[in-house]
Amino acid sequence: MSPTPAPESIRWIGDVEGHLLLLDQTRLPGELHYIECRDLASVCEAIRSLRVRGAPAIGIAAAYAVTLALRQASPANQDDFLVQLEQCLQQLASTRPTAVNLFWALDRLRQLALRLGDAAPHTILQRLFQEAFAIHAEDREICHAIGCHGAALLPDGASVLTHCNAGGLATAEYGTALSVVFTAQDQGKQLHVFVDETRPLLQGARLTAWELSQRGIPSTLICDSMAAQVMKEGRVDAVITGADRVAANGDAANKIGTYALAVLARFHDLPFYIAAPTSSFDLSLESGQMIPIEQRSASEITHGFGRRTAPENIAVYNPAFDVTPASLITAIITEHGIIQPVTPMEIDHMLNQPHRSSGD
Amino acid sequence: MSPTPAPESIRWIGDVEGHLLLLDQTRLPGELHYIECRDLASVCEAIRSLRVRGAPAIGIAAAYAVTLALRQASPANQDDFLVQLEQCLQQLASTRPTAVNLFWALDRLRQLALRLGDAAPHTILQRLFQEAFAIHAEDREICHAIGCHGAALLPDGASVLTHCNAGGLATAEYGTALSVVFTAQDQGKQLHVFVDETRPLLQGARLTAWELSQRGIPSTLICDSMAAQVMKEGRVDAVITGADRVAANGDAANKIGTYALAVLARFHDLPFYIAAPTSSFDLSLESGQMIPIEQRSASEITHGFGRRTAPENIAVYNPAFDVTPASLITAIITEHGIIQPVTPMEIDHMLNQPHRSSGD
Repeated sequence: MSPTPAPESIRWIGDVEGHLLLLDQTRLPGELHYIECRDLASVCEAIRSLRVRGAPAIGIAAAYAVTLALRQASPANQDDFLVQLEQCLQQLASTRPTAVNLFWALDRLRQLALRLGDAAPHTILQRLFQEAFAIHAEDREICHAIGCHGAALLPDGASVLTHCNAGGLATAEYGTALSVVFTAQDQGKQLHVFVDETRPLLQGARLTAWELSQRGIPSTLICDSMAAQVMKEGRVDAVITGADRVAANGDAANKIGTYALAVLARFHDLPFYIAAPTSSFDLSLESGQMIPIEQRSASEITHGFGRRTAPENIAVYNPAFDVTPASLITAIITEHGIIQPVTPMEIDHMLNQPHRSSGD
Repeated sequence: MSPTPAPESIRWIGDVEGHLLLLDQTRLPGELHYIECRDLASVCEAIRSLRVRGAPAIGIAAAYAVTLALRQASPANQDDFLVQLEQCLQQLASTRPTAVNLFWALDRLRQLALRLGDAAPHTILQRLFQEAFAIHAEDREICHAIGCHGAALLPDGASVLTHCNAGGLATAEYGTALSVVFTAQDQGKQLHVFVDETRPLLQGARLTAWELSQRGIPSTLICDSMAAQVMKEGRVDAVITGADRVAANGDAANKIGTYALAVLARFHDLPFYIAAPTSSFDLSLESGQMIPIEQRSASEITHGFGRRTAPENIAVYNPAFDVTPASLITAIITEHGIIQPVTPMEIDHMLNQPHRSSGD
């Protein structure tokens, strides 16, 4: 089967006066529908409602949203512009708390605006727009670099288990965890992927299974509770997931259920890999205990698919993420290379060494 | 809150000419609907479709179904009766492969009919009907005895995690794993229960959460993938589940996801208990590897909630059960007492020692 390129999750149309197209991931795999965002509110809504999701993709969408917000604001002068920029950045920052790429992208724009000093508002706006484009373009290169580094870890014939969606939909293109699979396939390796459906919102069933089937990669959908069983049956060679934030010690927040997989992988003596760009690292946090975990609505569990499947008034716990301790992570695959063992020193070394390019 | 007694899952109405009422568990918690079964086919359909489910409840329903089948058959003589009985037993035995209580109940009826020698068909029918009643009544006592033995394992204030439904709905009354919780509550202990929703068919969300809320027991619904996180947060003191079949070495088959919980409990240094009547033990099987595991339809995962939530033509693996090795089971709670450690010798001792009564 000839692989069909997966549709882009994020596309900017036109110049600084253009608009943002976001592939509405809540409608996949049933419908391929793009929403047009022409203002800040629509992007914030899309991030909160998970129409755009995945740590890198959220950062990219937020970066473009700054252009949408500030060109509408028509600030009178540079001070006014910076005030309005800060308001916009804070509004975007409030959409989702866990993925650090959002704050990383917003801070990159903030620092750029501050560096531009007393430039005219329209000049700053133009530069912020170009920076959003740069963040978007760099993410493509980063994903490919992660894929190249990670593919070396997967032998031909390997069977990989993944959770949630760390694919092209979660990034500019190719993804993080799935980039490793896609790149191995590009290298001619035959792989098989077990896809955790990923309750409550089924990003695995709806998005990852769809991306893999678009590319003709053999995959098997399972419920999250079946991962242990397929490991026990000897049908998994490695677990690979993405991450939403990695602390300085290597503890990694990712979709709820990831921590369980790491424990299960350890019990079954399987490698557990995280694939994440360096923009997902938050060195200001000593450990994963300090990563804020988003709590989401009970209805995601009690009314997951349009009808009530639990009794009225039942208490629900619905953390969107969990934190896997570094001690359970075999290696972290970044665009600069592979961090192994996962220790503060190795992380510091990888993040602070000079790199030829993001694609090296 | 004054506990409301949970509705019975199985009720026989009238004498040998009466009919069977089965609470349709596929419609819970939205609707409290009983289906009337007046023939063998309707009971077989109810078992296959999980309208009645839970190892002990399947055994009871099947036992009553024998009366429904044979009174319609009107056999000419005793030989003819035994032939028709065997056909009926084999039809019932083919409904679901994993839970051994089904085969245990059917074999109990077969042995009874053989013992009755050359009695008239209507006499054998009457005795088989009485035996079904006895199996039903005994199960109530067995569940209460399991609750009494198990409650001693739970201190006041304990927080328990359970999976699937091993409650009153899965048995004649009170359940196995949930009987332990209900009995501890009856003894004045304050408990809290984390309820795994239990994909794909949500027996935890739909049935266990409902039974607990009917009895006013504080409980929190989680997705299966969140169990590891609540354990990590120190919010679980013990895991208790039922079992569908226990091998001679203590390996236990139960709802898919149970094995993962046992691994996670071991990692978090928590006790993992199985609660099951001795009729769930299959001493003919040396180990759990020999327990047949039912594979169910892909649509339970791809269309779990009434609409398609996965791409077309995706491969699916959907084992209904998994097997937890005895080495991960802290103790098995039976009606005769607690098997600990879980070894072939302790199991043999518990099952073959003389017992005062099933309620001792």
